[in-house]
Amino acid sequence: MIVRDRPDIWDLLTALRGSIVPRIALPVLLLAGFAAGVVGLDRVVGGVPRLDGSAFAVFGIGLSLFLGFRNNAAYDRWWEARRLWGGLLADLRSLAREVEVFVADPALRRAMLEAGLDFIHAHRIHLRGLPVDKAERGSVRDLAGAPHAPCAALDGLAGMVAGAYRDGGIDGFGARSLTARVGAIAQQQAGCERIANSPLPFVYSLLIYRTSYLYCLLLPFALTGATGWATPLFVAVVGYMFLGLAEVTEELSHPFAPSPNGIAMDAICRAAEISLAPHLGREAPPPLAPVNHYLS
Amino acid sequence: MIVRDRPDIWDLLTALRGSIVPRIALPVLLLAGFAAGVVGLDRVVGGVPRLDGSAFAVFGIGLSLFLGFRNNAAYDRWWEARRLWGGLLADLRSLAREVEVFVADPALRRAMLEAGLDFIHAHRIHLRGLPVDKAERGSVRDLAGAPHAPCAALDGLAGMVAGAYRDGGIDGFGARSLTARVGAIAQQQAGCERIANSPLPFVYSLLIYRTSYLYCLLLPFALTGATGWATPLFVAVVGYMFLGLAEVTEELSHPFAPSPNGIAMDAICRAAEISLAPHLGREAPPPLAPVNHYLS
Amino acid sequence: MIVRDRPDIWDLLTALRGSIVPRIALPVLLLAGFAAGVVGLDRVVGGVPRLDGSAFAVFGIGLSLFLGFRNNAAYDRWWEARRLWGGLLADLRSLAREVEVFVADPALRRAMLEAGLDFIHAHRIHLRGLPVDKAERGSVRDLAGAPHAPCAALDGLAGMVAGAYRDGGIDGFGARSLTARVGAIAQQQAGCERIANSPLPFVYSLLIYRTSYLYCLLLPFALTGATGWATPLFVAVVGYMFLGLAEVTEELSHPFAPSPNGIAMDAICRAAEISLAPHLGREAPPPLAPVNHYLS
Amino acid sequence: MIVRDRPDIWDLLTALRGSIVPRIALPVLLLAGFAAGVVGLDRVVGGVPRLDGSAFAVFGIGLSLFLGFRNNAAYDRWWEARRLWGGLLADLRSLAREVEVFVADPALRRAMLEAGLDFIHAHRIHLRGLPVDKAERGSVRDLAGAPHAPCAALDGLAGMVAGAYRDGGIDGFGARSLTARVGAIAQQQAGCERIANSPLPFVYSLLIYRTSYLYCLLLPFALTGATGWATPLFVAVVGYMFLGLAEVTEELSHPFAPSPNGIAMDAICRAAEISLAPHLGREAPPPLAPVNHYLS
Amino acid sequence: MIVRDRPDIWDLLTALRGSIVPRIALPVLLLAGFAAGVVGLDRVVGGVPRLDGSAFAVFGIGLSLFLGFRNNAAYDRWWEARRLWGGLLADLRSLAREVEVFVADPALRRAMLEAGLDFIHAHRIHLRGLPVDKAERGSVRDLAGAPHAPCAALDGLAGMVAGAYRDGGIDGFGARSLTARVGAIAQQQAGCERIANSPLPFVYSLLIYRTSYLYCLLLPFALTGATGWATPLFVAVVGYMFLGLAEVTEELSHPFAPSPNGIAMDAICRAAEISLAPHLGREAPPPLAPVNHYLS
Repeated sequence: MIVRDRPDIWDLLTALRGSIVPRIALPVLLLAGFAAGVVGLDRVVGGVPRLDGSAFAVFGIGLSLFLGFRNNAAYDRWWEARRLWGGLLADLRSLAREVEVFVADPALRRAMLEAGLDFIHAHRIHLRGLPVDKAERGSVRDLAGAPHAPCAALDGLAGMVAGAYRDGGIDGFGARSLTARVGAIAQQQAGCERIANSPLPFVYSLLIYRTSYLYCLLLPFALTGATGWATPLFVAVVGYMFLGLAEVTEELSHPFAPSPNGIAMDAICRAAEISLAPHLGREAPPPLAPVNHYLS
Repeated sequence: MIVRDRPDIWDLLTALRGSIVPRIALPVLLLAGFAAGVVGLDRVVGGVPRLDGSAFAVFGIGLSLFLGFRNNAAYDRWWEARRLWGGLLADLRSLAREVEVFVADPALRRAMLEAGLDFIHAHRIHLRGLPVDKAERGSVRDLAGAPHAPCAALDGLAGMVAGAYRDGGIDGFGARSLTARVGAIAQQQAGCERIANSPLPFVYSLLIYRTSYLYCLLLPFALTGATGWATPLFVAVVGYMFLGLAEVTEELSHPFAPSPNGIAMDAICRAAEISLAPHLGREAPPPLAPVNHYLS
Repeated sequence: MIVRDRPDIWDLLTALRGSIVPRIALPVLLLAGFAAGVVGLDRVVGGVPRLDGSAFAVFGIGLSLFLGFRNNAAYDRWWEARRLWGGLLADLRSLAREVEVFVADPALRRAMLEAGLDFIHAHRIHLRGLPVDKAERGSVRDLAGAPHAPCAALDGLAGMVAGAYRDGGIDGFGARSLTARVGAIAQQQAGCERIANSPLPFVYSLLIYRTSYLYCLLLPFALTGATGWATPLFVAVVGYMFLGLAEVTEELSHPFAPSPNGIAMDAICRAAEISLAPHLGREAPPPLAPVNHYLS
Repeated sequence: MIVRDRPDIWDLLTALRGSIVPRIALPVLLLAGFAAGVVGLDRVVGGVPRLDGSAFAVFGIGLSLFLGFRNNAAYDRWWEARRLWGGLLADLRSLAREVEVFVADPALRRAMLEAGLDFIHAHRIHLRGLPVDKAERGSVRDLAGAPHAPCAALDGLAGMVAGAYRDGGIDGFGARSLTARVGAIAQQQAGCERIANSPLPFVYSLLIYRTSYLYCLLLPFALTGATGWATPLFVAVVGYMFLGLAEVTEELSHPFAPSPNGIAMDAICRAAEISLAPHLGREAPPPLAPVNHYLS
Repeated sequence: MIVRDRPDIWDLLTALRGSIVPRIALPVLLLAGFAAGVVGLDRVVGGVPRLDGSAFAVFGIGLSLFLGFRNNAAYDRWWEARRLWGGLLADLRSLAREVEVFVADPALRRAMLEAGLDFIHAHRIHLRGLPVDKAERGSVRDLAGAPHAPCAALDGLAGMVAGAYRDGGIDGFGARSLTARVGAIAQQQAGCERIANSPLPFVYSLLIYRTSYLYCLLLPFALTGATGWATPLFVAVVGYMFLGLAEVTEELSHPFAPSPNGIAMDAICRAAEISLAPHLGREAPPPLAPVNHYLS
């Protein structure tokens, strides 16, 4: 996640970090060059077909519709992902308070909270597609053999509840509270996996990229008559707007990727460690700080 | 579900799998041919009526409105269907953990989880309209005589809870937790059945297809004057955009059909089997892999 | 609810059932006639004032905004109504499973489920504004004297829970589960009554019908110059689009009316009977089938 | 709330009740007069600056964007308010059923339900900003000394639960059910207070009214050339559309005001009395009927 | 939060408080000056390139799309923040009622409610980024040493529940109710922290500010031909509209900042104190009143 204040005049002119300019510079330049070629051909040779502006406007409206839809859908995915991670943080904090109330044995309490932290780290690793056996946290590496590491961590937690319930270490109220909490965590976990595993329908990407490029390639034929040599500039601006938005939505729709706009899952895992530290009798680690405006 | 990375330049030019081009190629070509006929008539014979561009724009705005609405509605149906299936997966995982806590008898635990797996398979078969007695999973075939197979699976699960509760095999906390879990599953099941049984109002399909075709048929009369022989190309592009979107929304609004953008219910059923395997003391099967970019 | 597959080419040309054409044919023809009169006057007498196309476009944008909003609001009402009825079905199924678990006496179980079925029928009758004492189901007719029949059915159900709880026929866990279930049913019931009793603000209907007619009446003055005798055709198409959408939204915003797009409440009540039949020890009735593409 | 059937042709021409025409008639007439002055000046003196139509269209798009947003936001407030009141009605009904189950003493049951009715009346009075000590219901007037009358009613209800729980008149299951119900009521109450206390950001009102007036004042300069003496009529229609929508959204965004589109809180309070009458052993009062199409 | 009635005619002309005019006056004037320079150059020297209006319209549509999206996203953040704070108020009121029911010891009850008030003040301070050790409320200053002050307050509350549960001062039903309530508070707290810590993606700010400025800078080239010396005025109006909206969305998207449209968190904290006063046996403080139309 890029962490910056609102852009001032200087940022507007120069910011590249967090900007999509670098990634779309090449196609935009190519489009401008093509437009220059069309204008040149029209001025030198003539006979270039011209498109009617008002009919062209309809085309633009359709394109806006596609881009607007996709932008909303991508942003909703991103924001829901962030919401789920915020909910997981709250659930871990509540878990810590509930084991305090319902679990008498301090060692068991600590083991349960460690399993909770194992889960959130394993969940992060799973969503990012990283290898479990390379996890920084040792107890997460122990989950590497399981068919689904985050589920194994939650299974372990539930198993401790089951054992204590049978031993009388937890009463019925506690068993019900703690299983409900684990159930809430599992719902949010499944929500994250849904976003990670179900991309936006591929057909939209095709429709949007194809329509955007067609639009920018046809634009010079609509403009060359009235706009002349300002056409390449105008095409570049429109290309920047439409291709830029397509690129942004591509990125936002994958909120768990380590991209500039990805969810700062490392920072949230750290926040969970800070919140649980007092319950584990540990010194709280410092919060993660952004590096070069970037919070991982 | 089509599983592909973001399209590169080559895909944009050539991808047909997951694309709607093949299905709309014929009507788009017919529209382009009609446009060519209109232009030819106008050039050769003359006297073809011309429509005013700016009034035509209003028509296009209305059409965008229809298509935009329908696209949002169809996507929401698709995404809600996916959300419900993700929720069912989480509920089955939670069920496994809760029987671990509240049910002492391991055989009964296993029977309950098998009933859960029966349910999710029967639910998938029911949504796809497949015959229950041809199910791959044997215990699902046993449900073929019931008036509603997925309900019968859940009734069986609830019956086991009822029996154990009366026998003392489950205490009150367990009975309440497990019935609440089955209730949550039933809500999500009913959500899926709602989407499957209540298509988008038929009147929208009529309005949209009728308006789209009328629009594309009238377009040549608006363009022929200024655009000339480029008219058929332009009509083809607009037809691709509007008919393509209509086709995509038709497909997305039926998320349980075995179409390229349908929910990957087979894969989610497999994921449930993987998650429940450790609780059933079984080897976890491998996750389903996409075949030719398609995950069923 | 109209149940049809996606329209094929023939349906597009001819479908009237489920179409709004019959209801708006008269005003659309009148508008076209008026447009023909304006064009005739302009050609014969002259001096008809002409409106500027681009200013007119703004007017169309505003109208699209109104219609788009109203369409979304009406569809949301329809879909929420359907969602609530799906939820009621799930709640009745869960009620059947919960009485199985928590109520020992089979006769009392059956009485509770009958009360549940009474409720859903009385609720349907209430929403449709039909007379309670003409209900097909005998036990619903017995509720005719109550100030609010569906509430009386739920009160009866809750009364059975209360009696059994005091007699010891239900324990505390059961009382809590069953009252929570009845509470969930009551929430969904109130949601349906909200939609039935609170129509879309009347002021929107006025604004939209007034603006739609004004727009269609002014359109000939904007078109007559450039479009000539094609004006009446164009006015008819635009009138079909805008009046048709207004009509559709009027219908969808009353989802409990027995209109072609109304919620198929009879079918859902039947589905509830099917689902509860095994619990009542009855033969399940067949599901309702659409008659002439219409499911009531 | 205005209760009318869909407008017929006569209503469309004449309806003023529930219409916003009376409130915007003056500014619309002034705008039309201003437009007539501009046209006159242009025809008589000449030299009036003319604005380009297509640039003007952009301005109109921006305005549509503002109005569309504000309309959605206002409608959402109105509908959420209605949803919360429907939820309160359901909660009171459920409260009545739950005290039936969990509270043995009939006198205490009645006292609790009376407190519930006190709450909903006090809540209505609070939202409308009326004086508590003038309430029609006597037991509500007794709350006049409390810092927050609706909270005092709920505190009284919770106090009865607390007393009975300590005396053994309610068991733990009942205490948990009833406090959860009161908690749900408190959430919905807070939702209503949020809507009442947090108007739409004032800055939007400024932006929208300023832009609407600027637009209507500049419109004659864009139209006078092509449209001539029809300009004042056209300006009046556009002014009706934009100012009318601004007025409607202003009204809908204050759903608790006693305006034609305000929530019919009196009728819902009456519905609560009807629903609770059988539990209180009272004759149910008749439902409130609209007076001159208006339901308060 | 700005608290004003709907603007009257005089406010529309003059209101600056709550208006964004002061903040965008400078850039708008610069844009108008630039436009005047372009027109002057065009009239005096000539040869200024002209842009085609209808192509320019497409650009405006894209910009409207960006601004509309961002406006919706920012407003949703603001309204969700307000919703969460309303929910926290309701939860504190419910906490007060639940301790009344489930906690026998009055001193412990008071201590729990004080911890609740500590939490809401610490939460407000945390969201505003103020120093904890400067808090007005003494018991909040005691939390200054904790790694996360609001969490420490809730941990303290949960600790009291845990202690009383072990001592028998709270029974199982109470422990479950109170931990569920604390869990609900923690979810809403995490929601607020999510909004505070995850700004709208920076890339949107860049895209929108860059596109808005480009649009306003190119506008004179599209207008100068037809509009002449009215161009600077028109550019100023469009700049006011687009830059004003960009500024408003910037502000609304940070709902916890002490800006004119920020959430009135001081007032809500005071409302919590008023609601809890009767439970604490204290005189209720007066509600916070707006100062110069501003409620902090």
